[in-house]
Amino acid sequence: MILLTRKADFSSAHFYWNPAWSDAENHRVFGKCANRQGHGHNYTLEVTVSGEVDPVTGFVVDLKQLKDIMEREVVLVYDHRHLNHEVPEFAHAIPTTENIAIAIWRRLDGKVPGAKLHRVRVYETPDLFADFYGEGV
Amino acid sequence: MILLTRKADFSSAHFYWNPAWSDAENHRVFGKCANRQGHGHNYTLEVTVSGEVDPVTGFVVDLKQLKDIMEREVVLVYDHRHLNHEVPEFAHAIPTTENIAIAIWRRLDGKVPGAKLHRVRVYETPDLFADFYGEGV
Amino acid sequence: MILLTRKADFSSAHFYWNPAWSDAENHRVFGKCANRQGHGHNYTLEVTVSGEVDPVTGFVVDLKQLKDIMEREVVLVYDHRHLNHEVPEFAHAIPTTENIAIAIWRRLDGKVPGAKLHRVRVYETPDLFADFYGEGV
Amino acid sequence: MILLTRKADFSSAHFYWNPAWSDAENHRVFGKCANRQGHGHNYTLEVTVSGEVDPVTGFVVDLKQLKDIMEREVVLVYDHRHLNHEVPEFAHAIPTTENIAIAIWRRLDGKVPGAKLHRVRVYETPDLFADFYGEGV
Amino acid sequence: MILLTRKADFSSAHFYWNPAWSDAENHRVFGKCANRQGHGHNYTLEVTVSGEVDPVTGFVVDLKQLKDIMEREVVLVYDHRHLNHEVPEFAHAIPTTENIAIAIWRRLDGKVPGAKLHRVRVYETPDLFADFYGEGV
Amino acid sequence: MILLTRKADFSSAHFYWNPAWSDAENHRVFGKCANRQGHGHNYTLEVTVSGEVDPVTGFVVDLKQLKDIMEREVVLVYDHRHLNHEVPEFAHAIPTTENIAIAIWRRLDGKVPGAKLHRVRVYETPDLFADFYGEGV
Repeated sequence: MILLTRKADFSSAHFYWNPAWSDAENHRVFGKCANRQGHGHNYTLEVTVSGEVDPVTGFVVDLKQLKDIMEREVVLVYDHRHLNHEVPEFAHAIPTTENIAIAIWRRLDGKVPGAKLHRVRVYETPDLFADFYGEGV
Repeated sequence: MILLTRKADFSSAHFYWNPAWSDAENHRVFGKCANRQGHGHNYTLEVTVSGEVDPVTGFVVDLKQLKDIMEREVVLVYDHRHLNHEVPEFAHAIPTTENIAIAIWRRLDGKVPGAKLHRVRVYETPDLFADFYGEGV
Repeated sequence: MILLTRKADFSSAHFYWNPAWSDAENHRVFGKCANRQGHGHNYTLEVTVSGEVDPVTGFVVDLKQLKDIMEREVVLVYDHRHLNHEVPEFAHAIPTTENIAIAIWRRLDGKVPGAKLHRVRVYETPDLFADFYGEGV
Repeated sequence: MILLTRKADFSSAHFYWNPAWSDAENHRVFGKCANRQGHGHNYTLEVTVSGEVDPVTGFVVDLKQLKDIMEREVVLVYDHRHLNHEVPEFAHAIPTTENIAIAIWRRLDGKVPGAKLHRVRVYETPDLFADFYGEGV
Repeated sequence: MILLTRKADFSSAHFYWNPAWSDAENHRVFGKCANRQGHGHNYTLEVTVSGEVDPVTGFVVDLKQLKDIMEREVVLVYDHRHLNHEVPEFAHAIPTTENIAIAIWRRLDGKVPGAKLHRVRVYETPDLFADFYGEGV
Repeated sequence: MILLTRKADFSSAHFYWNPAWSDAENHRVFGKCANRQGHGHNYTLEVTVSGEVDPVTGFVVDLKQLKDIMEREVVLVYDHRHLNHEVPEFAHAIPTTENIAIAIWRRLDGKVPGAKLHRVRVYETPDLFADFYGEGV
């Protein structure tokens, strides 16, 4: 068993807002992130898959295929988009780093032929990241 | 004469749009960046000042003061903001990396006591940056 | 269950010395690190907590609170300090990367409301780091 | 129990080719990597060992010794070499990132006195890496 | 006048060899780099152009066009290639970092519409790079 | 004319203190850096030399020689040292990033055969660096 990880980047806008709360409560809990005009990030996504090394190719997974799946399922949908307004899973869930990692897990799980999704890591900035291993999904 | 450079970060949303053009023309020229919901970046700012080293302190510039000026003049105004909607200099200028570098030069020029502003560098992503040396301002 | 990681930096001086040994033995085992004037590093700290995502906020942990705890419990005590001379836990333990990671675990464990401390990672340089998961503490 | 990780770099040439296949099949599966002149990478190796912290030294492992072992067993053999033509383990196994990680595990396992090899991570580029934990070896 | 810089990556094999010299002389001068099987690197290219900001677009240069030119003129020719054997300019010039920077200047100069090529920077590794400004070409 | 840059690292302790001032004045001007126990950094040094490319070797400068000079003149003297107590040029000059860059220029100038020292850059942290071009030395 071996793990293989591939990175990709996307640039998106977002803000944090709970419509069940007052404006004051949103600003108290979310601080600067509650600015409803939105702000943005260069997100970095790391997708890790696990599997056996194919003795014929030396690969756990076809790298081109993995890249295409990440591109099609995530980058095309998230990149240069406003997550709150344009990505369906964030219509009712706040696009925190944690929720983005879970949403990307759901988008990728079961889509990588011959390998198992092991971990989704999302960096909001170089100093903050979330890891999701699929527990409870 | 020596140069001293300090970095800071800010996260903002923006989009590219020229109101004098048709929608089709905006999309043709600006591609994904013309999405008017906006998208975002973690910008990195490098501010370089030049001057003589003070023989008493060993400094070209008071580092705490430089940090405070960058924070007050740029980070507080740009961070967690939508540049097109919330930062006055981009009401009529498109917030490209080039224009952001020029705008930051104007915000900082003449504000650093005892040193001369030498260069403003703005990274939109780790792979794209603009340098402005104040020519023509 | 999801993991969230936040980074912080501190700059400290240290040296390696076992008072039970001769000078020669200290220099043989610790090499350049046995220089008792001390030398220093820009340490990078990564703190990882685990927990459930709060469905109301989308957070595992209040990021502002986590930042404040890391600042108060670690950065304020270690940054711009000489670890051997000024930080109590290194009065009798050598401030190796391993021991710094364990000491930071002890400083943070039980302090983060609503989440569980999962891992403390300390980089002494970009090429050397220790990970501690709390085993045996 | 604590983990300690040390990095090293090596620059090597390689290509992907399965001699049991036709040229067309090799190019279809391996794309640009099937160019038999070879191309190259700056590989980054991370070696993680686990163990107890020695209460006398504060170390899990003698860092100088770990560096020497990585240098002697891996860097001297791989650096500035063509992996396909000059490194014996790749005479019959394709030097993919996965196979390089497994080969390095085999080179290092059991060689680090007083500590257990925990993980070998190999970055082919900053955007692609493999992790091997020794399963099935 | 403003400068805009864009990065790209390519992975290539190379070796250093002067056919006018004996084997011994090549090994004395070029060390490990004289291994004629070749070794390789992940090169990073930074292309800087200068010009006026177009008041209509906010751009010095069309970023998509700059990317395409770098891709077509350099990356397609160098990436996953053996520079000594497959890239014509290195048939008679040793592919040192310096010569690669000069060769890329020659490939790009005059090709970027509306802007002037200002600098070509080539990183062979993160610790070694050459800058060429077109002097004497 | 081409520029070649090589990096090296050293880890040192330092503090800022002007003996002509009161304790209070030192703390007011230098803040945390006035702690006389010292603190430390992983410094990164970039040395840039300029010259013509030798048509026979393809080099501006012998890289091995440049590395050896940087090692002998700077790294051996500064690394794992307390700059204030153990490096002669800081007996009477405060080891600020600016003064370290100037001191390294003086150590290297005229020592690199066949090339001209062009710039010394010193990073105290990834967010703060000084550049010295030899003016007035």
